[in-house]
Amino acid sequence: MKIYVDLALSPDALALLREGTAGHELIFPSKPATSVLAKPEPDPQFASAEIAFGQPDTDAIEKAEHLKWIHVSSSGITRYDNDRFRALMAARRVAVSNSAGVYCEACAVHMFSFIVAQARKLPVSLQTREPNGSPVWNALRHASSTLRGETVLILGYGAIGKRLAELLRPLGVQLMAYRRKARGDEGMPVVTLAELPGALQQAQHVVNILPDSEHTRHFFNTGRFASIKAGAVFYNIGRGSTVDQNALVAALRSGHLQAAWLDVTDPEPLPDDHPLRHEPNCYITPHVAGGHPHEVVSLVRHFLENFQRFTRGEPLTDRVM
Amino acid sequence: MKIYVDLALSPDALALLREGTAGHELIFPSKPATSVLAKPEPDPQFASAEIAFGQPDTDAIEKAEHLKWIHVSSSGITRYDNDRFRALMAARRVAVSNSAGVYCEACAVHMFSFIVAQARKLPVSLQTREPNGSPVWNALRHASSTLRGETVLILGYGAIGKRLAELLRPLGVQLMAYRRKARGDEGMPVVTLAELPGALQQAQHVVNILPDSEHTRHFFNTGRFASIKAGAVFYNIGRGSTVDQNALVAALRSGHLQAAWLDVTDPEPLPDDHPLRHEPNCYITPHVAGGHPHEVVSLVRHFLENFQRFTRGEPLTDRVM
Repeated sequence: MKIYVDLALSPDALALLREGTAGHELIFPSKPATSVLAKPEPDPQFASAEIAFGQPDTDAIEKAEHLKWIHVSSSGITRYDNDRFRALMAARRVAVSNSAGVYCEACAVHMFSFIVAQARKLPVSLQTREPNGSPVWNALRHASSTLRGETVLILGYGAIGKRLAELLRPLGVQLMAYRRKARGDEGMPVVTLAELPGALQQAQHVVNILPDSEHTRHFFNTGRFASIKAGAVFYNIGRGSTVDQNALVAALRSGHLQAAWLDVTDPEPLPDDHPLRHEPNCYITPHVAGGHPHEVVSLVRHFLENFQRFTRGEPLTDRVM
Repeated sequence: MKIYVDLALSPDALALLREGTAGHELIFPSKPATSVLAKPEPDPQFASAEIAFGQPDTDAIEKAEHLKWIHVSSSGITRYDNDRFRALMAARRVAVSNSAGVYCEACAVHMFSFIVAQARKLPVSLQTREPNGSPVWNALRHASSTLRGETVLILGYGAIGKRLAELLRPLGVQLMAYRRKARGDEGMPVVTLAELPGALQQAQHVVNILPDSEHTRHFFNTGRFASIKAGAVFYNIGRGSTVDQNALVAALRSGHLQAAWLDVTDPEPLPDDHPLRHEPNCYITPHVAGGHPHEVVSLVRHFLENFQRFTRGEPLTDRVM
């Protein structure tokens, strides 16, 4: 098999990949990608690939007639997630899987760190040097929460949402989820689009893990932010495109939202002069939710597990098309 | 009964206290305390008290011959926790209880927020505006951890430590505890003083919840910091006096410790020119770990539960002497 790999690999990750694909041909782009999220340069070598591992370009995929399987090196599949591409993959019987399993744990822990840091008011508290008993100190102490009894609404309930729920449960929170179709195995109340405004009115914490797609673009717009309970906190580790950032700025400025914690923005990184950079209660990390030690080795290991399944004709893990 | 209350009470907390002690006499200091941790002014009214609720002065306690029960309005009992005072209380049959049950949950969640924020490198990440794929961004992503498999050593394993362990378990950490005497019901390996250096060598996270006492003063000194595994993180929500802060500064400056997270210092607040304020990896909150909404109402409710027990001659909750 010819395996096209457009993924920046550490020496140990490359060694692992070579060992796990011995007897097959690895093809690397002449100009390698710099990160799991970077868009690659066009490469004529791609036309002969049977397997693609990385972030292959959709135009290149259309021309690669021998392609049988694409393993995307991220959780998000933004550039592939549209009806046209899905139809093309279905017609040409190309399987598409992603690396959700690699990032799920880190993404859940990252979101969890946002919620817990917000509960304890860490960004403010770490800057406060007030003595015991001062009005500022008393206000900070009483604003700090244990989360017990507060409602967390998770939008986009997949593997990350499920894991986040496991981490939140010992804190005694009330959990709710929004997904397009409830499956009944979520272990918490699930609302669909019609019931969403009611759920947004109940939640102190609105957790956005929605993927980017034509259905989710600017899902959080002025109207939806207005539906959120006053004083609630908004979190996003899905994709920046799911939020109308002007509407978010307005919701923060008016005080309708207490705070926003974002790992994703549109664009990334957000320019220094973007209004969200200047909102005092807007906390932004630079798309690192999925980060963890030896990440590239994890990606290769996850690919190799699926490669074994592919060569044996078994069902793929994290298959998305 | 004459109940002396030197605790700053909100109107709702005061109403609750009056209702729960109807038929008894409440005595308030002419100059009320400003916080649960503030030391009160001497007050001649104290001499007739049978019950004291707050932070009564030890000199005043010695002279109060009718005193039968002291309910301390904090978890820490620093000013009472010495052999001389314990002997006096025992000789005069005065019961002493504290408010540990009120602060336990918030303290555990606060410490937990430190550990999770450190794992995700939030203080650094929230300041980073690097694009995907840059060397700084890659380093940050790979330094961010999920905590899985990392060892957390909890020193001072009481109610807070137990609750912290419950919150940490779903993250897949290895837990160990240090306490003076293992009871066997801790659900994790427990080390005593002789085995402590070995445990400190294993832990990536050293969690100090030791109370202040003559046994714990400067427990973390130069030698003990040297025993900690290189690159570990030190946390303190116990009492500032358990740490030799000069030794902590040295351990941070040399890079032996990766970071320190402190909710307690000596003194509080730490002066702006203290070296710990200028260590880039030292994160300090202003003794707010126990803070939560309606804290004073919780304190009064906890006191009233014990007051019921006291009047019925039942064993007190959170009795410490």
